[in-house]
Amino acid sequence: MRGLEKLKGAIRANNSLVCVGLDSDVKKIPKHLRKKKDPLYLFNQEIIDATKGLVCAYKINSAFYEALGAAGMETLRKTIKCIPKKVFSILDAKRGDIGNTAEKYAQAAFDYFKADAVTLSPYLGFDSIQPFAEYQDKLSFILCLTSNPSAGDLQFLKPDAKPLFLHLAAKVKNWNKHGNLGLVVGATYPAQIREIRKEAPLLPFLIPGLGAQGGDLESAVKFGCQDKSIAVFNSSREIIYASSEKDFAEVARAKTIELKERINQVRKGL
Amino acid sequence: MRGLEKLKGAIRANNSLVCVGLDSDVKKIPKHLRKKKDPLYLFNQEIIDATKGLVCAYKINSAFYEALGAAGMETLRKTIKCIPKKVFSILDAKRGDIGNTAEKYAQAAFDYFKADAVTLSPYLGFDSIQPFAEYQDKLSFILCLTSNPSAGDLQFLKPDAKPLFLHLAAKVKNWNKHGNLGLVVGATYPAQIREIRKEAPLLPFLIPGLGAQGGDLESAVKFGCQDKSIAVFNSSREIIYASSEKDFAEVARAKTIELKERINQVRKGL
Repeated sequence: MRGLEKLKGAIRANNSLVCVGLDSDVKKIPKHLRKKKDPLYLFNQEIIDATKGLVCAYKINSAFYEALGAAGMETLRKTIKCIPKKVFSILDAKRGDIGNTAEKYAQAAFDYFKADAVTLSPYLGFDSIQPFAEYQDKLSFILCLTSNPSAGDLQFLKPDAKPLFLHLAAKVKNWNKHGNLGLVVGATYPAQIREIRKEAPLLPFLIPGLGAQGGDLESAVKFGCQDKSIAVFNSSREIIYASSEKDFAEVARAKTIELKERINQVRKGL
Repeated sequence: MRGLEKLKGAIRANNSLVCVGLDSDVKKIPKHLRKKKDPLYLFNQEIIDATKGLVCAYKINSAFYEALGAAGMETLRKTIKCIPKKVFSILDAKRGDIGNTAEKYAQAAFDYFKADAVTLSPYLGFDSIQPFAEYQDKLSFILCLTSNPSAGDLQFLKPDAKPLFLHLAAKVKNWNKHGNLGLVVGATYPAQIREIRKEAPLLPFLIPGLGAQGGDLESAVKFGCQDKSIAVFNSSREIIYASSEKDFAEVARAKTIELKERINQVRKGL
């Protein structure tokens, strides 16, 4: 199945645009799990079990697993395997390298970890994206406007009076021959989401930055989902660390329901 | 020891600016190694043994190990461990993510893999670089102008009549509070190396693209090393796959000597 069709199916199945971000960190998960074998996997498993009927996707932040080396890679692999088939898995890796290296990163994301989608960094241009785009049953979300405070260092520069992130959005539209590219657009810059949506009405957006980073949910949903465009909203820390006690999965579930409903409320008004 | 001092020491020790890139691939290494246990490690070990007195650094391309999952990460760790202490190790990972995630990537590169340096992608701006820069005994090389054909998609755009890669060089100069940042500048764009060196005379350059990618050695050395600036020249495929027979390490050694001498010849004339 085409990557975008699978994502749409996942959205329909749970009537949800919520993506839960598994930025799982041994120092932040509940204490009772920390001394067990593979605590991050146990943590992820419980979070997934409690929320899998409420989300369209999980975003697994590669860095949190890489910091643990080989064992972390195994936890990452098992975590993706544990996600139900009807729900979408996004490996948040922000890779970007020359062609022959990008092929290897694509193999890691899609063949080894078997993620449904990946996030990519665009600094090297199209040939760093192409090997990922060749996987037509997968999706690649390319960083356009990121949610962090210093996003503007490069992304707000203005070649030809148009900010870099809008140039990028236009380029990704042109690169999207197989209909399997999307954009990462931070919820922390709502006015810009509107501009990017105008530039690229057909590209799916992955919108992080809603929770701990303080993004504006209403604007993000309004512009992200405008005219039936596809957008997926990620929240990580605010959901998975909402409780540090034994009830963490239950509280994560409640937080996910809350976010799902807030998003769907705004969608209804569109 | 400061990261830059260690690199300078490695350059002096072997009177070499050569960095050998370990883009090691099971499909490309000699057949007699392929069926052994951990063939990439055996391959790397032989290459390192044959060249360690001739280079200042090894660059390990993370993608080639990630494609093998957890086992590949272990091979990567062992490879870095096998590099002599006086020689510099660069983990070519091109990471770039928001602050709390960048911290985890820095832990992976520096605490887990114990690389001396890392390559980073600048699209997210300073807060994606800062957690790496906090490791004052390490170096971080930030992508400025890359060696691939589509580098210009973003890097040649011209905010305020100055190409993006020069804006980036100026920014990295400002970010370089601890003296441990450098730039990645592709040998395939010699005229631009000159401009970047003019913008940032004090930043060390990591210059890939000399071998299989066809970069211009003479210009790269001339501009990279101008006025005693520090530059390190990477060659991967042209050295490590120069022979696919049992003599691969010996041939890699000969190719390394040749490259070292060609570079030193140009340096002498500066």
